[in-house]
Amino acid sequence: MSRERPLDGFFFEDYRAGEIFRHAVPRTITEADASLYIGLTGARHPLHCSRPLACAMGHRGCPIDDLLVFHIGFGATVADISYNAVANLGYADVRFLAPVYAGDTISCESEVIGLKATSTKLSGVVHVRSHAFNQDGVEVLTWVRWVMVASRAILEPASATFPVIADEVATSDFRLPAFINVVALDKRATGSGRRWEDYEAGMVIDHPGGATIGSSEHVMAAHLYQNPARVHFDAIAAKEGPFKRRLVYGGHVISLCRSLSYFGLENAFAIAAIHGGTHVNPMFGNDTVFCRHVVLGRSELPGRNDVGALRLRMLGVKNTPLKSFVAPREGEKNPALVLDLDYSVFIPRRENT
Amino acid sequence: MSRERPLDGFFFEDYRAGEIFRHAVPRTITEADASLYIGLTGARHPLHCSRPLACAMGHRGCPIDDLLVFHIGFGATVADISYNAVANLGYADVRFLAPVYAGDTISCESEVIGLKATSTKLSGVVHVRSHAFNQDGVEVLTWVRWVMVASRAILEPASATFPVIADEVATSDFRLPAFINVVALDKRATGSGRRWEDYEAGMVIDHPGGATIGSSEHVMAAHLYQNPARVHFDAIAAKEGPFKRRLVYGGHVISLCRSLSYFGLENAFAIAAIHGGTHVNPMFGNDTVFCRHVVLGRSELPGRNDVGALRLRMLGVKNTPLKSFVAPREGEKNPALVLDLDYSVFIPRRENT
Amino acid sequence: MSRERPLDGFFFEDYRAGEIFRHAVPRTITEADASLYIGLTGARHPLHCSRPLACAMGHRGCPIDDLLVFHIGFGATVADISYNAVANLGYADVRFLAPVYAGDTISCESEVIGLKATSTKLSGVVHVRSHAFNQDGVEVLTWVRWVMVASRAILEPASATFPVIADEVATSDFRLPAFINVVALDKRATGSGRRWEDYEAGMVIDHPGGATIGSSEHVMAAHLYQNPARVHFDAIAAKEGPFKRRLVYGGHVISLCRSLSYFGLENAFAIAAIHGGTHVNPMFGNDTVFCRHVVLGRSELPGRNDVGALRLRMLGVKNTPLKSFVAPREGEKNPALVLDLDYSVFIPRRENT
Repeated sequence: MSRERPLDGFFFEDYRAGEIFRHAVPRTITEADASLYIGLTGARHPLHCSRPLACAMGHRGCPIDDLLVFHIGFGATVADISYNAVANLGYADVRFLAPVYAGDTISCESEVIGLKATSTKLSGVVHVRSHAFNQDGVEVLTWVRWVMVASRAILEPASATFPVIADEVATSDFRLPAFINVVALDKRATGSGRRWEDYEAGMVIDHPGGATIGSSEHVMAAHLYQNPARVHFDAIAAKEGPFKRRLVYGGHVISLCRSLSYFGLENAFAIAAIHGGTHVNPMFGNDTVFCRHVVLGRSELPGRNDVGALRLRMLGVKNTPLKSFVAPREGEKNPALVLDLDYSVFIPRRENT
Repeated sequence: MSRERPLDGFFFEDYRAGEIFRHAVPRTITEADASLYIGLTGARHPLHCSRPLACAMGHRGCPIDDLLVFHIGFGATVADISYNAVANLGYADVRFLAPVYAGDTISCESEVIGLKATSTKLSGVVHVRSHAFNQDGVEVLTWVRWVMVASRAILEPASATFPVIADEVATSDFRLPAFINVVALDKRATGSGRRWEDYEAGMVIDHPGGATIGSSEHVMAAHLYQNPARVHFDAIAAKEGPFKRRLVYGGHVISLCRSLSYFGLENAFAIAAIHGGTHVNPMFGNDTVFCRHVVLGRSELPGRNDVGALRLRMLGVKNTPLKSFVAPREGEKNPALVLDLDYSVFIPRRENT
Repeated sequence: MSRERPLDGFFFEDYRAGEIFRHAVPRTITEADASLYIGLTGARHPLHCSRPLACAMGHRGCPIDDLLVFHIGFGATVADISYNAVANLGYADVRFLAPVYAGDTISCESEVIGLKATSTKLSGVVHVRSHAFNQDGVEVLTWVRWVMVASRAILEPASATFPVIADEVATSDFRLPAFINVVALDKRATGSGRRWEDYEAGMVIDHPGGATIGSSEHVMAAHLYQNPARVHFDAIAAKEGPFKRRLVYGGHVISLCRSLSYFGLENAFAIAAIHGGTHVNPMFGNDTVFCRHVVLGRSELPGRNDVGALRLRMLGVKNTPLKSFVAPREGEKNPALVLDLDYSVFIPRRENT
């Protein structure tokens, strides 16, 4: 990608299938970023806030929260990919490949894998496959996302490029580091003895509590992630937009739900993969999000009898207590649903022998 | 404590006198937490923000602010003790026992030392004695608090357990590290030459300035302290509660007052103990707090002629300039009074010889 | 300065020309402060967030953002100089003299170089020359500012002291460290190939995006900078003031504009000097700031053919999209203009040979 990025960012007609963007800005993630992330989300998984526990589990320090790595990687792609996004439509094939530690520096690149004009001819959907690498060139994360990008002009009919995206990340593609030792992840550390065996397909968990997000919090979060998308920051421009106000960066909603779901999924110590997901409706400042999980299934991990994977559906629901929320069926709409994510986590098994 | 914590937390009838909770989640406190604490409170005591000064005083780096340690310790107890708190009623016998440094990991436990149903039979008061330990098992902090906890059902008459709590922490129980050298704490460091001898019992100090607290600030503070009490975060649920809106975590009000009182108590470099205190009225987002101190007395410290202790009454007053505030007498009420704390600080003496 | 600072700060009649203040509180700047600064501003210059890049450029780690050093230095002077400021009027001769790294401790002093009562006799303008030193006594920053300070009483006629202040910082006084190697600052790092040669005098750059600043953000920023000026924090007192609400610390507006201007000035990796500037109008919580730059000129640096300096006029404009903003001429007023800064940056040259 040797073209100079226009000051006002790229528009739909600027993208070419197969083009590769090597994104600025490289970012050294620090333990300070991890602390501010706790301040912005209430995250409390002990792997990310207790150094002795992290070391007992085999890490050389607290790894950076998977979602913080994701947000910083995502943020790095925005200037090139979604600066003129109308809507961030969905994710797929998100794979967490290697731990990231404080002091590591992340650099990202993206390939355009799909392009299709929308029927309005005023925008198009851009699919990209992105990769994040650490300072040693080790790939730590890869993901696909698609985003609706405004066009500069009314689009001429053109051939579309459709990406091939897997429906799910295969369990055999999960990357649990071989050194991980879950014996240390006991009830004293997490507050719960609930393990892999305690979750069964179909189980519904309505997590207690809700998170009301202030404008300053979501602005600071997007700043922390160095996500420059104008829709999060500029209230004057937002008044002219479809929602009349700034949008919360959707990824941050995932973090709020992950944090809310601590009580009920205390031992789900890391995210293996996000199979797919969408931000069904936008969130705004002063909205309150609640989180429900539906257990989709359990799977064993090759070569490990101490850790398993849970496949989960994370539902983020706004301004509606969960007891009065009914998840929409296929094709139905519910404006309270803001997030619908299909993902897998690692969790210790009870029977280690 | 081997019972599994219910997803919605324990209620009053779940507690048993003498029961011990070993709380999740262990927390490594970092210099980033200290920085964010400065951002959330305006703290400026140089012991916590100047490494050369801290080292000149004998520390091996900046110790973590006493109140930040307290809040993180307190936060760790909330899931087990006060998740269903109606109100956080008071503190007693809070003793700061050993310095905490960036990189130390804090783990907490609590013993139920008192239980008494309230006359409404819809809640009861739970007293706990809590302890915070560092990664080497050194106790760094201990405190008693009592909290009104909702009951699941109308309570049957039952015998109450009353705790025995000392009225004050004896000066002989203060733990000033022997290595502390206060010569470095000069006027250049703190901006003031006011010392132990300059404060006398009965003196009233109305500190200049006030702190208006935004919702995002108190939410971030409670997140930083990993305090999950629902009343701080969930505006939807709060609408159904007695105050119709989210509450500021009371401990954070102590921090705001400590910060405001820097101008006037510049050399009070550390907190020795909190003898007792109550959150007299709640604070909400957009309230402004002011701070008055009344000097209760001075005491010498055994074996030290360079440092003494001041006993202080800290009054937090909301939305009312101090010049028009009259502290309520015993039995009177004043809705502007939010905090009434009886505590002791260490401060250099003028005469070191 | 051996006088004891009054609890309510110094007023205009307390200052004497030539008096020197050695300010409390020394401050160790940490990588956590840098992270929170990113969270509060959206700063993304890679020199301050990529350790490998900073090291490739010759630094021993990420230097602290020039403006963060400035704000912390400025904040240290407030208690003595501008605690009772009515308005912060302007800056001149701001020179960035040496890099500051995480772990460095900054101490500041100021000399009163000008005093003049205003015609209202209710305040006066105080000019100070301030200096910031690191723990080794190396001067890292010096600046002049002038501020309108309230008087305790109606002022008697008195002789005024007028400072001598240079109109600009000479290019020969810029301090680019000799070790700086800009080869690493390539397009992969910054996202842009725009270099010194691409900017010409008269060029106008309207940077995309705008920054709406929440009250919690500017309060946290002022706390981070340990700036205790009451006007930023106390909404109750502010109601009695001329603006009826709290003011955003002006320096933070510079940071927001610097952050907004990343897209368009990606390679302007450091600030050499601020020749002069004023906060033309105040900013308040919920205001949105936009940034325009006018290129004033280019200059070569002695002994360097790889880096040059750009002289820039930074205009901060509030609540008015730039396309409809006309910069006021000399003598005209425009309430939308909040910041007018004349400064110079370092930027790589294209032709290194």
